[in-house]
Amino acid sequence: MGDVTEYIRRETDRFRDELFQFLAIPSVSARSEHDGDTRRAAEWLAERMREAGLEAEVLETEKHPVVLGEWRDAGRDAPTILVYGHYDVQPPEPLDEWTSPPFEPEVRDGRIYARGSADDKGQLFMHVKALEASLRAGGGLPVNVVVVAEGEEEIGSPNLVPFVEANRERLACDAVVISDSAMFDEGVPSLLFSLRGLAYFEVHVDAAKSDLHSGTYGGAVPNPATELARMLAGLHDESGRIRIDGFYDDVLDWDDATRESIRGLPFDEERFRREVGAPSLSGEAGYSVLERLWIRPTCEVNGLLSGYTGEGAKTVLPAKAMAKVSFRLVPDQTPERVAELFLSHLERVAPDGVRVRVEELHGGNPWRADPEGPLFDAASTALKEAFGRAPVLAGEGGSIPIVGDFERILGAKALLVGFALPGANMHAPDEWFPVENFERGIGALARLYEELARAL
Amino acid sequence: MGDVTEYIRRETDRFRDELFQFLAIPSVSARSEHDGDTRRAAEWLAERMREAGLEAEVLETEKHPVVLGEWRDAGRDAPTILVYGHYDVQPPEPLDEWTSPPFEPEVRDGRIYARGSADDKGQLFMHVKALEASLRAGGGLPVNVVVVAEGEEEIGSPNLVPFVEANRERLACDAVVISDSAMFDEGVPSLLFSLRGLAYFEVHVDAAKSDLHSGTYGGAVPNPATELARMLAGLHDESGRIRIDGFYDDVLDWDDATRESIRGLPFDEERFRREVGAPSLSGEAGYSVLERLWIRPTCEVNGLLSGYTGEGAKTVLPAKAMAKVSFRLVPDQTPERVAELFLSHLERVAPDGVRVRVEELHGGNPWRADPEGPLFDAASTALKEAFGRAPVLAGEGGSIPIVGDFERILGAKALLVGFALPGANMHAPDEWFPVENFERGIGALARLYEELARAL
Repeated sequence: MGDVTEYIRRETDRFRDELFQFLAIPSVSARSEHDGDTRRAAEWLAERMREAGLEAEVLETEKHPVVLGEWRDAGRDAPTILVYGHYDVQPPEPLDEWTSPPFEPEVRDGRIYARGSADDKGQLFMHVKALEASLRAGGGLPVNVVVVAEGEEEIGSPNLVPFVEANRERLACDAVVISDSAMFDEGVPSLLFSLRGLAYFEVHVDAAKSDLHSGTYGGAVPNPATELARMLAGLHDESGRIRIDGFYDDVLDWDDATRESIRGLPFDEERFRREVGAPSLSGEAGYSVLERLWIRPTCEVNGLLSGYTGEGAKTVLPAKAMAKVSFRLVPDQTPERVAELFLSHLERVAPDGVRVRVEELHGGNPWRADPEGPLFDAASTALKEAFGRAPVLAGEGGSIPIVGDFERILGAKALLVGFALPGANMHAPDEWFPVENFERGIGALARLYEELARAL
Repeated sequence: MGDVTEYIRRETDRFRDELFQFLAIPSVSARSEHDGDTRRAAEWLAERMREAGLEAEVLETEKHPVVLGEWRDAGRDAPTILVYGHYDVQPPEPLDEWTSPPFEPEVRDGRIYARGSADDKGQLFMHVKALEASLRAGGGLPVNVVVVAEGEEEIGSPNLVPFVEANRERLACDAVVISDSAMFDEGVPSLLFSLRGLAYFEVHVDAAKSDLHSGTYGGAVPNPATELARMLAGLHDESGRIRIDGFYDDVLDWDDATRESIRGLPFDEERFRREVGAPSLSGEAGYSVLERLWIRPTCEVNGLLSGYTGEGAKTVLPAKAMAKVSFRLVPDQTPERVAELFLSHLERVAPDGVRVRVEELHGGNPWRADPEGPLFDAASTALKEAFGRAPVLAGEGGSIPIVGDFERILGAKALLVGFALPGANMHAPDEWFPVENFERGIGALARLYEELARAL
């Protein structure tokens, strides 16, 4: 490992320059006008994999391609690990809230600011560089490696499950390693024991056939914005619980050990509140902030649009209103069941005078790990080496639906080891990733591959 | 009058061509990028007034100018009438809902389609053409005339009251005539007995300092879109009444005669519903549709905006949410009092965890007329002559705040005689004005000036 560590130290400036090139490509998978950029990011990544010593291919799907990198010289008897990441990013809007432009990476105060720096280009790229170091300076690896980098994570990975199913043999592995999450705190490396799932909808409410004058028609014609507001207002009760019949039926009551381990983490709710900048925190009664974020389901309005929203006072009675509404799910909820419950709830509460239409945008299952066993042991050793302390077990409120799919299709357990920090602004303006974790993390990953060879 | 009528018949094609030029100027007062167009509309209108035989000036205000046209050759002893209208228009959005572009006037099925055709360029221009006919073909008028055309009606006339106050002497008159409303039905000329007032607000709700990832933060951080929805949902009770303490204190209980006269109008609620295209109608329990539109106050959401509203599923927990909320007021409510009540209501119901800020955009008083007297008699005669039947008395749900201001400052009564038709899409896509009413209305107005000389 000495040579590998030395190589990483020596090459770190070049690694960062390359990362900046990667981050500068606006691979926004949700926007068709960026399809060319998304493809460019895939080609660029494949080229870096080849330079690292992998064989790499850009494989077509129905939308954005998968970049597949392979190194199989450890031999048939050696274990195989699959590294998963994604090279696409969230839309950068609202642009005016970025301190520096989202696709012009910049280091300020030890942080790399750019869309995708944390989620997930930065962390995916760390694996590529850890592999480069291991293969170039370490003379090879005791494990075979398959890297699967997709370009559709931020739009719900519509083509990844078919891809994994169609390539089941080629992707066969003993463990799946994913770096797309955050450490619990600065200097506190972490392994994830759970992820929440997702069920995302667009709710459309229509009344009149076109926008009307709010004076001439107001008072006698239903207002879809008001009716939508009523439906949204009715989604929670006063204790912060979701008021949809049957919603909690499949929600796991976590064991006391998990809840105690969460409570034992050094978490300062007031610091968290200050960091997000809200006047106070909120959520489901009876649960701590970390429990609300990790092991309890949510229902959030992600977007609202109706009528006139420009400058000044336009006296319009809107013809329609739209809300984006999503649920974060916990074991053992499924997006399919939540969709059924939400749709029948809206059908039941939809007021007279308007038409309500719901579009399902995407969903993903929640996931949980068994935090005891060889994967977690190997990762603990590697993280302790790189960060000077053993990792804590943490939950994650976000969703990586593919984790459960990999486990199901490939029959291998997943290990989620991320290096972003809380407050990284994933999905928000001023996304950032710590420079220090970029360097330490590459070392940790190179060590992890070694440890996994021993553990598996 | 024979020569005048003949002149109008002969020149009607030219009148319409000129109107189309007027409508083609996008004088959107709310949008600073159209300031040049708004001024161009003013200059254009002044030129047409001069051609009609008036003296015309474009007078500066702090924002958009007032066009003042004058003809005073009837002499000191003759009465003076003030004609008021506005040459600015509402923003045309949403553009994709227009059948033909808003600023490219087009006749289809006997209707002139364009933004401003009904509200109010078309009707203001009819006065200019009626004056042209009277002065050019009729050899003069028995009344002096002052035309006040403003360019800020659609943004709440911020500079008109100061203008009228500063020009009190020059604008001194015996009656104010305004054509900025609709007839009760096709072939049914109307005089307005009431207008609703307006109080328009923007409500801003903020929570976190920036948009957050709805997975990583959702469940513990207040969602401003949800909180805004709750506040909006609470503005009405189940019977459609507004749930703001004291809101109905100043609402006039109209006399039985007025309510009976409204009930006597030939109004088909089912036809109205079909025309607006809503699945069913709604509103305050205990009142008919016309009463809900004319003599009862309302609270409408005019616009909603929060979070991500583009294509696809962005999992954002919004940092802020905005609603445009306006009230239509009836005698004896005032926008000042309603603002007080609304602000203290929001203060009372504003939830923990978010900051609520309210911006007052604009307001105007409601108005009602005494439908007996010389003004209404003169107008009845003129309308009967042009349309073949006596006018009905109608209310109007919209607001023309300046009406009450003219009466107060100039001490003259206002007469509201409009020629648009119900469903004219004022403030909506596909605004239109009937070709037939354009021609008949010009004749009716020329006759009205004559009748007013006799009545006043």
